[in-house]
Amino acid sequence: MSKLRLRISMSFDGYTSGPDQSPTAPLGIGAERLHAWLFAVRGWRNRHGMSGGEDNESSAIVDAEMANIGATIMGRNMFGGHPGGWDAKEPWRGWWGKNPPFHHPVFVLTHHERAPLVTDGDTTFYFVTTGIESALEQARGAAGPQDIALAGGATVCQQYLKAGLVDEMRIHQVPILLGGGERLFEGVNDLHGLELVETVAAPNVTHFRFVKG
Amino acid sequence: MSKLRLRISMSFDGYTSGPDQSPTAPLGIGAERLHAWLFAVRGWRNRHGMSGGEDNESSAIVDAEMANIGATIMGRNMFGGHPGGWDAKEPWRGWWGKNPPFHHPVFVLTHHERAPLVTDGDTTFYFVTTGIESALEQARGAAGPQDIALAGGATVCQQYLKAGLVDEMRIHQVPILLGGGERLFEGVNDLHGLELVETVAAPNVTHFRFVKG
Repeated sequence: MSKLRLRISMSFDGYTSGPDQSPTAPLGIGAERLHAWLFAVRGWRNRHGMSGGEDNESSAIVDAEMANIGATIMGRNMFGGHPGGWDAKEPWRGWWGKNPPFHHPVFVLTHHERAPLVTDGDTTFYFVTTGIESALEQARGAAGPQDIALAGGATVCQQYLKAGLVDEMRIHQVPILLGGGERLFEGVNDLHGLELVETVAAPNVTHFRFVKG
Repeated sequence: MSKLRLRISMSFDGYTSGPDQSPTAPLGIGAERLHAWLFAVRGWRNRHGMSGGEDNESSAIVDAEMANIGATIMGRNMFGGHPGGWDAKEPWRGWWGKNPPFHHPVFVLTHHERAPLVTDGDTTFYFVTTGIESALEQARGAAGPQDIALAGGATVCQQYLKAGLVDEMRIHQVPILLGGGERLFEGVNDLHGLELVETVAAPNVTHFRFVKG
């Protein structure tokens, strides 16, 4: 069966977003520093249509993380836009422009129903209002033999972790403090058998991989 | 000038003690797992009068951490016993028995005055009621050319971190969740120039070393 693979960047004090999230600071204050290591990696830049970048200890990690993914699950807050119901006239279409980099079905957990959003590329966003298990079931159906990425944010990760549904967890820990925001493990006190199997120290980030024992 | 060197074990969710601390569970529930990696290291066991143990990736870390320390600073909660004033008849003498393993002056931050406690070994505990800067000054005087260990717990570490007084920070991060207790970085949002310079992956623990840039 396809695996649910959580991957997220986290500060040294445990935050995956910074304080004071807003439309102009969607990650919260200072949290762009959580992703600086990723933006520097050539393989990631290529996939996102950007030139340049480095090949370093993180390159193989990013490649492994992106390989064999057939569907993505994310929370409404990560999809972004605004809280509450969708704007009827001009509903938010995500952060990723006309051709999002997923190239597979993306399932967005939300409390507000909405028809699927088909983009110019081969990414379609499905809006799921029936909870995390339903979203996982739909993602499994869409992913076929491939795995499913759990992209964030913290709240959705917490729900899947608490339910014991995560098969692999990749934490990219950045040696900075954010001092506020959303904590990845808030309210989670059990890894449900996830065990650390790999630690890779790269420039400005440590990559941890946990898998179900 | 001698350096103030913080060293502490921390769970993957950022706790240095577990939930529900009490006289029978002084570290809080489950937090003995934070120190299992250390109790297994031969060099540490030898220093604490125990035989056996392993030589592994943590051995050199423990040796480096213990080297060149001429004084230790700790909080009252780590010294232990009970909250509030000292018992007049039988004041608490610490967790470490008749011959504590420090073998140098230890400065205990407390709100309650008390005469120095001389032990059978060459460890003397001094009780400091005049705050963190005063304790540091006294520790520097006692340490001479050597450095000063900041041993914990979380509250005392936070005070020194927020004041920007920590010169080196060694975090031993254990891949478990405690789900409650005291968080090392609670209320701390600035590392005051401490930068990650070394990451060592060992069995069941990752050793991080930060130094002032």
